[in-house]
Amino acid sequence: MAHKRGGKKPVFDILYKIPGKLAMKELGKYFKYEDGDIWFVETDRNNMKLEYRAKELISSVKSPFQQIDIVDLYDFGKCLVLDGAIQSTVLDGHIYNEMISHIPIVTHDNPQDVLIIGGGDCGVANEVLKYEEVKKVDFVEIDELVVKECVEHIPEIAGTTSQDNRVNFIFTDGVKFVEDKKNLYDVILVDSSDPVGPAVQLFSREFYQNAKNCLKEDGIMVCQSQSPLFNKDILRNTHKILNELYPIVRTYYAIVPSYPGGIWSFTLASLKNDPLEVDVMKLKTNTKYINEGVFQSCFKLPNMFKYVLE
Amino acid sequence: MAHKRGGKKPVFDILYKIPGKLAMKELGKYFKYEDGDIWFVETDRNNMKLEYRAKELISSVKSPFQQIDIVDLYDFGKCLVLDGAIQSTVLDGHIYNEMISHIPIVTHDNPQDVLIIGGGDCGVANEVLKYEEVKKVDFVEIDELVVKECVEHIPEIAGTTSQDNRVNFIFTDGVKFVEDKKNLYDVILVDSSDPVGPAVQLFSREFYQNAKNCLKEDGIMVCQSQSPLFNKDILRNTHKILNELYPIVRTYYAIVPSYPGGIWSFTLASLKNDPLEVDVMKLKTNTKYINEGVFQSCFKLPNMFKYVLE
Repeated sequence: MAHKRGGKKPVFDILYKIPGKLAMKELGKYFKYEDGDIWFVETDRNNMKLEYRAKELISSVKSPFQQIDIVDLYDFGKCLVLDGAIQSTVLDGHIYNEMISHIPIVTHDNPQDVLIIGGGDCGVANEVLKYEEVKKVDFVEIDELVVKECVEHIPEIAGTTSQDNRVNFIFTDGVKFVEDKKNLYDVILVDSSDPVGPAVQLFSREFYQNAKNCLKEDGIMVCQSQSPLFNKDILRNTHKILNELYPIVRTYYAIVPSYPGGIWSFTLASLKNDPLEVDVMKLKTNTKYINEGVFQSCFKLPNMFKYVLE
Repeated sequence: MAHKRGGKKPVFDILYKIPGKLAMKELGKYFKYEDGDIWFVETDRNNMKLEYRAKELISSVKSPFQQIDIVDLYDFGKCLVLDGAIQSTVLDGHIYNEMISHIPIVTHDNPQDVLIIGGGDCGVANEVLKYEEVKKVDFVEIDELVVKECVEHIPEIAGTTSQDNRVNFIFTDGVKFVEDKKNLYDVILVDSSDPVGPAVQLFSREFYQNAKNCLKEDGIMVCQSQSPLFNKDILRNTHKILNELYPIVRTYYAIVPSYPGGIWSFTLASLKNDPLEVDVMKLKTNTKYINEGVFQSCFKLPNMFKYVLE
């Protein structure tokens, strides 16, 4: 499904000439041709319009769940775009992926069995697999095509996940997957997309309760809890639900330049160990963002984000 | 110069009907009317186009130096826009202002005499004035009209700076101001705009040398050193020059959602005290972003930013 853009010709003209490839109708919604370039147009925000100049629209496919585009942007490099929203980029995808995975893995005494829900770009799995203690990763993603596209087109993010025999791919709905399981996992990572459409359930009390049941007695769960600037209610609500379910709940943050507002929150819920008290020397050093200093400082929330949780 | 937008009428029509107020020609460059609203259009990036839905274009004036617009955006609140680039917003202006000011003031043993270069929105001065030890602030800004506009229209950022008798406003070129002064200041804060046009000199070795001469023997200077993602050369070069001039140089970072990439760097250069070793209990608590945890953790750079400095 790859489409290489050449020279300065209008992309619509080119596309029309490639039977079976991208049609103008498909391209029309999130991409346009302007100033001699392809532009990716974000359409999901109310009060901002963002357009990114693209080097190339690498792939564009439709799964039963969503529109999946892989585009190479000048400022952010190759990106996974789902239904018109940027999910991960080569420039900064590793920040999100490192922050959601290394912190719970290092916090757990012996993280052998890991469950990842979502995260079809394979970036989170790729970080988890850096730890030899991890014996098995159940990787539950609803959309198999997202995984295929990312493995093929964005190896910078997907890494070697698809070749690692510790990974057990399960293409199903994560919400259903956790409904009937008990006492199976040391660490659960919920790498959900935004709480719209099918992902809404991944932010519900019922899901969090079921996920807790899947954990062993010293288990740890981490979820992305949205922007502390623009989604305060979701962060507050996630924190509140987890506080009712777990003895230890810690919200931390990272910079994710390609996300709205540039700051993102994660909330860790733990049945035994506190990330503020662990030995950060266990942290892997083959990372691009996280290090011991970042691990310790990401829990030190600025006042404006503390207020959201109060 | 205020212009209130009413109802759903095209703003251009309204503007034409207000003699002496904004003319379409002035509005044309950075603002447009679309979807029944005013939109602010950023035009200074090569690979991104950003448009922000505005509640109101509050003021629009031209000084001898630049176009000055005050606009109220839905996502960021009231903003100062110079020549089409957002300088500070009510949503996040305090982050930048607190981070560039509290850290050097707290690091210095007795910060009585402070020089601020740039920072016409008065936000940095407003933070500095929170410290009673500060006896005098020489506030050197090239464009008097920026100060007037911000004091009048954005008191949320400007605060009470203009009424504080410790402040000595000097409307002149900061580069020239530091050329012939010696041994005057405890702390110098360089709140420059981006290194294009007149602000280029504020990033030069000659300017940094002259600024150092203005410091007393235990003085501290801080400058904004641009985005560690998109302006790596400037950050690296600033750090290099300051390392040649000062025994202690520390780069730190903060999240500034309205700036490109959402992350911003500052570089502190000190002749005596090290911010990593000071008593952060001196930090004022009437802040929205900085606190003791943020003070200590902002120096713990993520790997990708450390690499920029190596």
